[in-house]
Amino acid sequence: MSKAERLTEQIRESEDFYPTRGSEEQLFERVDPVVYGTGEPSGKYSLMQEQLGFYEQNGFLVVPGVFSQQEVDALINEYERLVASGELRGKDELILEPDSDQPRSIFNPHRFSGLFDRLLRDRRILDKVIQILGSDVYVHHARINIKRALNGKSFPWHSDFETWHAEDGLPRCRVLSAWVMLHENNEFNGPLYLIPGSHKYFVSCAGATPENHHKASLRKQAYGAPSVNALRELAAKGGLAAAHGKPGTLILHEGNTMHGSSDNISPAARTNLFFVYNSVRNIPVEKPFAAAKFRPQFLGNWDFTALQPIENDLA
Amino acid sequence: MSKAERLTEQIRESEDFYPTRGSEEQLFERVDPVVYGTGEPSGKYSLMQEQLGFYEQNGFLVVPGVFSQQEVDALINEYERLVASGELRGKDELILEPDSDQPRSIFNPHRFSGLFDRLLRDRRILDKVIQILGSDVYVHHARINIKRALNGKSFPWHSDFETWHAEDGLPRCRVLSAWVMLHENNEFNGPLYLIPGSHKYFVSCAGATPENHHKASLRKQAYGAPSVNALRELAAKGGLAAAHGKPGTLILHEGNTMHGSSDNISPAARTNLFFVYNSVRNIPVEKPFAAAKFRPQFLGNWDFTALQPIENDLA
Repeated sequence: MSKAERLTEQIRESEDFYPTRGSEEQLFERVDPVVYGTGEPSGKYSLMQEQLGFYEQNGFLVVPGVFSQQEVDALINEYERLVASGELRGKDELILEPDSDQPRSIFNPHRFSGLFDRLLRDRRILDKVIQILGSDVYVHHARINIKRALNGKSFPWHSDFETWHAEDGLPRCRVLSAWVMLHENNEFNGPLYLIPGSHKYFVSCAGATPENHHKASLRKQAYGAPSVNALRELAAKGGLAAAHGKPGTLILHEGNTMHGSSDNISPAARTNLFFVYNSVRNIPVEKPFAAAKFRPQFLGNWDFTALQPIENDLA
Repeated sequence: MSKAERLTEQIRESEDFYPTRGSEEQLFERVDPVVYGTGEPSGKYSLMQEQLGFYEQNGFLVVPGVFSQQEVDALINEYERLVASGELRGKDELILEPDSDQPRSIFNPHRFSGLFDRLLRDRRILDKVIQILGSDVYVHHARINIKRALNGKSFPWHSDFETWHAEDGLPRCRVLSAWVMLHENNEFNGPLYLIPGSHKYFVSCAGATPENHHKASLRKQAYGAPSVNALRELAAKGGLAAAHGKPGTLILHEGNTMHGSSDNISPAARTNLFFVYNSVRNIPVEKPFAAAKFRPQFLGNWDFTALQPIENDLA
């Protein structure tokens, strides 16, 4: 699809199907499909129909053993090399712990590392993502998340799509997240928690977005956060689920699935990689739906080049 | 045993077997037994030998179904009545959440409620406690712990006995904790986490105790907290364990077992009762082992009257 075609399509898409940050909270039914197109396998690493059905119904899927321990070791080494190199020092992409010089997040690691770039395009991820989103995809957001030992902080419940729509201008919910575990994720180190089925509802959050909200929200989310009543209602329908797994596990979760995580109280740090893939048919509209201006591009990327899946051995 | 006999015995006990709050952290092997006496059943609600063996080895035991749902409902009603009555307002025993008038802890609930007093003396707890500690017992500390929904705070890893020895003057480790779950405790609401086998080591913590430490430590423990290295060493030996259970579950854990908990990220509050039973042969010595003065008696009780087990139906 040419850029002109894309823009033509987006004129139709600029209507706001997910109004949010108004005067009061509301719960809508989702208007978009979860699986786009036929869901037919698009490559040799596509999901089985049972897995696709689970994803459609629950809004997430845990796939163990996607990457080998040798590949995980190589990714951990690459992460350590990147941190030790000092090349991120002073950049927006590096977020440190408030009380130490240890990294808490590194944004867009694929721009600083060939290995992370290859991982981002890995067919073992992309075959599944393209199958679900029914089109080519590009990367909207990418991050390494480190939860430090003993008191690595929790994240309250939220829908990523609510922010991507309100502050990044993604018109439709045709976007998903892929997590790769570099360490085991278990009950003790703050794994991802999800509300199964919550992706089928949109929580329109109360409160207008303040300017430069992203600076504060990287520390603590105050806008775009659902109330306890909305969470109770969603949890009453779907319960709560935990995404545990060994290193090398892949988690896919729908952009609108309500998720959060607890503290890391274990005596070891825990690192996950986080890639957000958006459909090339869902690029940002001219202005964000519920913010005065777009978030910076290190948070909401504007290079919409479709990713070509590659066959990888990362070890 | 008369008070005179007790004092005579304590003269021998005033030596410090668990030095702590010195200039650097150290890890000692425990000098005291875990199960005192023969471990023979002392009553009809005593533990089976397998349970006693598990407790001896791991430093804790989860016993499901000790109290019925009807009894749990009665205890929850009594808790709500106590809060609504307002009779605790302004008392030391009531600790509120920092940003609301909701209770976070209520100390010594048995002094304000006949029902909690009966629970404290319940044979279903005391038969087990007396069997383990091999003597009559009294209550050293009692508390209702409420972890509020969504962001009920975590507790970092610690040994209770370290504080009871350092700041309350309990000479030997002949003391244990009993938790009663009023709500289900699960992965999502910040259950008790333990390091199995950690009760067999004493972490002598670094740093002298500041005056009135208890006021700050009710909010955040800064002294008497083990380092990440000590926790790694203990966790490398014993791993980490979670105490999950339905309402009415009883947890027994040895006074020196390293434990902590994560935050409550679930959309419902979670309430547990916490009773600390100390042997009448282990009452406080003349001054605390590592603090200028004793903590107040609402934290470290000085009524050493032996508890008489009673047969209860709390519903």
